[in-house]
Amino acid sequence: MEQSDTLPENAAAIFEQIVTSRRSVRIFDGSPVPESVIEKSLDMALSAPNSSNLQPWEFHWVKTPELKVELVKACLSQAAAATASEFIVCLARTATWERARVDVLNQLEKHEKAGVRIPRAAFEYYRKLVPLMYAQGPFGLRGLLKRILFFWTGLSKPTPREPVSRHDMEVWATKSTALACENFMLAIRAYGYDTCPMEGFDSVRVRRLLDIPSDALIPMIISVGKRGPKGVTLPVIRADRSLFVKIR
Amino acid sequence: MEQSDTLPENAAAIFEQIVTSRRSVRIFDGSPVPESVIEKSLDMALSAPNSSNLQPWEFHWVKTPELKVELVKACLSQAAAATASEFIVCLARTATWERARVDVLNQLEKHEKAGVRIPRAAFEYYRKLVPLMYAQGPFGLRGLLKRILFFWTGLSKPTPREPVSRHDMEVWATKSTALACENFMLAIRAYGYDTCPMEGFDSVRVRRLLDIPSDALIPMIISVGKRGPKGVTLPVIRADRSLFVKIR
Repeated sequence: MEQSDTLPENAAAIFEQIVTSRRSVRIFDGSPVPESVIEKSLDMALSAPNSSNLQPWEFHWVKTPELKVELVKACLSQAAAATASEFIVCLARTATWERARVDVLNQLEKHEKAGVRIPRAAFEYYRKLVPLMYAQGPFGLRGLLKRILFFWTGLSKPTPREPVSRHDMEVWATKSTALACENFMLAIRAYGYDTCPMEGFDSVRVRRLLDIPSDALIPMIISVGKRGPKGVTLPVIRADRSLFVKIR
Repeated sequence: MEQSDTLPENAAAIFEQIVTSRRSVRIFDGSPVPESVIEKSLDMALSAPNSSNLQPWEFHWVKTPELKVELVKACLSQAAAATASEFIVCLARTATWERARVDVLNQLEKHEKAGVRIPRAAFEYYRKLVPLMYAQGPFGLRGLLKRILFFWTGLSKPTPREPVSRHDMEVWATKSTALACENFMLAIRAYGYDTCPMEGFDSVRVRRLLDIPSDALIPMIISVGKRGPKGVTLPVIRADRSLFVKIR
């Protein structure tokens, strides 16, 4: 395992510049964004931490001009869409974890055969615990049984409680996808371009347009471009920090 | 508005190093993490993009030794908790948006009085649209009405569809909170420390321990520390990129 973790001394200062110079840009200037910038930023998205490494995300990079026109309309023709150069439709998948589980197991076995020491517990985790945790069964019946079981065992010892429903799986997949979305947006910024994460869109029309699988949510659509001279329309507004950070 | 967006030339390369050297660390070496590192990283969290700038997040930095002992137990005594120096319990709040809405309005008015040009549409948005979008009403009845209305208007023109239920609000708040969590974890990494985002915890016990408000979800508990010599227990495993990135 790569245990190295050394970074340049100014890494934190540069990270802060990336974060604070990122703004949700509403008006892009129309410049093209190099394909390599999108590609690299998607790589950064895929490097985000995620639940049990089951990567319940999907990024649809919409390039076809006709689809882009329709996507802008589905984004209510807002300026952040209408002036953007590129679009990433971000999906949170609730039904791909089983495929991912098998894939992780296969890759762990390959690593082991190549001489990498893999803890036994990791194999056990993906073979036995992951299906127990994420399968909710037909009509959510397995989830319901788990909820009862967890309540019971929880009386005497600490017990994980979620996910035990389709709803929980949606929250679960959205969470990992958002972690990846943030990596993507910061990477785009680091390359000198900008984004607007949009939630103001017609999800029914986007689903129809891109034939989105029924198990997926669309946490956001990220538009990408070069910041226009009046691209940021509001000052930075943040409430009193003590509302959000609690010392316990 | 600050429209400046210039970053050092190596920003993208350094960002990539931060992202790829971040691993979920399971065994910390016990070194203390400077308070300033946590403080600055929380600032980075609070700078994340979020839905309508309503910042539905809360970060509980657990410092009291007795609470930390109990929190480790509630995290099933996993090594990533037992060996950690600091803990941030991350909450997604579904009931704080109204307070945030009023605060944003007040701040916009203050900026305007100070001579900053604020678009009329921004005031309209926070005065009228935000309550329409996020209030779900008693028993979710307003949400239900919205769902019917959106279906109807959606027949003839693009119409935003969510959030229209308590469930949607949970997905909504979790999404913004996860964006902030990723900023936090990357910032900690940029400072040379490490994190483990944990979902394996007993949410019932954590709620009781920290008296978590009932409208909140706990998307993750992030443990923080210095990476131990065998802190990373598995190789990087990522599936074929074509499974996650679709060109449309």
